[in-house]
Amino acid sequence: MKILILGGDGYLGWPTAMHLSTQEHDVAVLDNFAKRRWEMELNVEPLIPILTLHDRVKVWRERTGRELELFVGDLRNYGVVEGVLERFRPDAIVHYGEQPSAPYSMMDHNRSVFTQMNNVTGTLNLLWAMKKLELDCHLVKLGTMGEYGTPNIDIEEGFIEINHKGRRDTLPFPCQPGSFYHLSKVHDSHNVRFACRAWKLAATDLHQGVVYGIETDGTAMDERLATSFHYDDVFGTAINRFCVQAAAGIPLTVYGKGSQCRGFLNLRDTLRCVELAIVNPAKRGEYRVFNQFTETFSILQLAELVAAQARKLGLTPEIHHLENPRVEAEEHHYNPTHTKLLDLGLKPHFLSDELLDTMMVTILKYEQRIKRQIILPQVQWNGKDKDQVMGGLKMMWAGA
Amino acid sequence: MKILILGGDGYLGWPTAMHLSTQEHDVAVLDNFAKRRWEMELNVEPLIPILTLHDRVKVWRERTGRELELFVGDLRNYGVVEGVLERFRPDAIVHYGEQPSAPYSMMDHNRSVFTQMNNVTGTLNLLWAMKKLELDCHLVKLGTMGEYGTPNIDIEEGFIEINHKGRRDTLPFPCQPGSFYHLSKVHDSHNVRFACRAWKLAATDLHQGVVYGIETDGTAMDERLATSFHYDDVFGTAINRFCVQAAAGIPLTVYGKGSQCRGFLNLRDTLRCVELAIVNPAKRGEYRVFNQFTETFSILQLAELVAAQARKLGLTPEIHHLENPRVEAEEHHYNPTHTKLLDLGLKPHFLSDELLDTMMVTILKYEQRIKRQIILPQVQWNGKDKDQVMGGLKMMWAGA
Repeated sequence: MKILILGGDGYLGWPTAMHLSTQEHDVAVLDNFAKRRWEMELNVEPLIPILTLHDRVKVWRERTGRELELFVGDLRNYGVVEGVLERFRPDAIVHYGEQPSAPYSMMDHNRSVFTQMNNVTGTLNLLWAMKKLELDCHLVKLGTMGEYGTPNIDIEEGFIEINHKGRRDTLPFPCQPGSFYHLSKVHDSHNVRFACRAWKLAATDLHQGVVYGIETDGTAMDERLATSFHYDDVFGTAINRFCVQAAAGIPLTVYGKGSQCRGFLNLRDTLRCVELAIVNPAKRGEYRVFNQFTETFSILQLAELVAAQARKLGLTPEIHHLENPRVEAEEHHYNPTHTKLLDLGLKPHFLSDELLDTMMVTILKYEQRIKRQIILPQVQWNGKDKDQVMGGLKMMWAGA
Repeated sequence: MKILILGGDGYLGWPTAMHLSTQEHDVAVLDNFAKRRWEMELNVEPLIPILTLHDRVKVWRERTGRELELFVGDLRNYGVVEGVLERFRPDAIVHYGEQPSAPYSMMDHNRSVFTQMNNVTGTLNLLWAMKKLELDCHLVKLGTMGEYGTPNIDIEEGFIEINHKGRRDTLPFPCQPGSFYHLSKVHDSHNVRFACRAWKLAATDLHQGVVYGIETDGTAMDERLATSFHYDDVFGTAINRFCVQAAAGIPLTVYGKGSQCRGFLNLRDTLRCVELAIVNPAKRGEYRVFNQFTETFSILQLAELVAAQARKLGLTPEIHHLENPRVEAEEHHYNPTHTKLLDLGLKPHFLSDELLDTMMVTILKYEQRIKRQIILPQVQWNGKDKDQVMGGLKMMWAGA
């Protein structure tokens, strides 16, 4: 199949490209390197040095003999989107090409608006181009489990049957997202669902949990094929950040009590889930949602798992509870359904001691590169944004 | 109270300003006159000639001795929004300042993206400015009944109690909007709800039905105080359009079978509903939804009511069924709840023969101005947008 990966330079996009290329698909990647600029803005960088995408594509060719077609362009530019789709004519599009950080979207007025405009416009452009070109193409869109929030009922996969006053319907699951980033994904989901209904497009919306892990078969092949592993407060996520904190000998920082529960999955499983969605495509006119995670943990549980494993490596981790910078329920029901990908054949890599061990050993190799000052949360959901707005305005619009 | 009306030049904004001014509130209006430009793009105009907003404010002062403060600015510009809020320091903001047409949003790629960016950015800017300035201010935001779509269960006012697998929660009512415009309102609703939760803002989201009517106490005072009554296929709505078709002696055009049901209300009731929301404000941290309509009708029922009334005036109306340009269910359940505004004291003006008579008599006064070629639907939900995209790009971005 011809598969176009949007956001191919990213933490998920790059290993997905290698994985699908290995499966003998004809893969193209597109990126505008916006994330590299956001890293620069915040003075953060991935733990492992990352080659340019051009160079990683070359290394991939050198190591495997496989070609990845590379497009450089911004999804906010409709001409770019239509042009790339017309030239590559993909059978499937994997859409990771969005601003992926909740703290970034809460940082100030400007980044909040930017996040929604960037994410929503890119996806709208994609939908219009798919319609216009009448491609027989399946959109595999990265959403998030955070679209649902934490309702006091079990979360279903995208839709829920509701019985109400003697009548019944199966309706979109109500969303209570917790940041302007998560909101942008909810907006996308509504737009994509409508386009599938109105224009008979086919889409799978992957409501993904929090991804952890640093290694895939592709990245393991050559250090120059590494993926951009973040551990900072803006782009890093819980397990990855805890492992880095343990390796660096600084306390593991749990937000609030840490009893917040979330769904998690291994980076390797992300690749497999996307592949399963692609080889079992949605039908024309169908909009479907897969809840893409393999296990649920509380944040404190995770910190304790990481700390225990760190001790086995001779480290002396501590766990600190910070005042929660987010506005979120700390005590809540959490029992989301996640059977659709299992039904398609997903065999999860669960979070094991071995995985944590491998991650920490890798992290220790790069310990000298850890910037300790970028780990603690800087972004308050309720914070004042006076200075940040002005800085943000200068930073974002000067470069736009 | 100090009340700021965003979109004060519009069909609803202007009569709302007059109404609240009459109630002795201290009223300011803001507009960027974008709608006048969209009219120009499409070569449509309101039935009654409309003075500039500056001049209507002068006439209002001349006729009533009351001042309306006038701000000219674009809500997409954060500096404008914060500046106006800081200067006027409203107790309530009535937010009509959005692109209001579903067909406009479906016309082509460019207008679809524009509609969502314009509407969502404006509202986000407002939320951030309210947060930053820490105003004790109640946002009264215009949404639409179209946010819900037509589920097979009764529609509740914003939230629904769901019992699921032995657990229970009250959650946002699931949304199935039917155009990129309606989607923009759903995005707004999610953003506003989040801001109320995260930042303890206070908001009322008016999920309004389709408004009809041409006259209010304010407009009746002086022809120069008229409001911009549209009957074209893009900005006109069902009853208004039918009345103009009857007056002009052209067939009333019903989309499809006409069995689609919607909620409707008189323009006078819109003003009263907004007033009721303002004088009974949401509490800090509260996000509430009022379903703002007074009656439901099928489209065919409305056409028949208008036709019957037209016959009494000696006209000879015909009803034609057109292929439905929209993607919507024509046979569906429709029983939305709408008690909250009644509980606050709304006394509806129902659609009566007398109202239709008055509307048609007014319309007949301006019969020479009716542009017959702008009434039939030009915008297909499923249409090809090839030429329109190019035209749209030129039109919108050249001027942006």
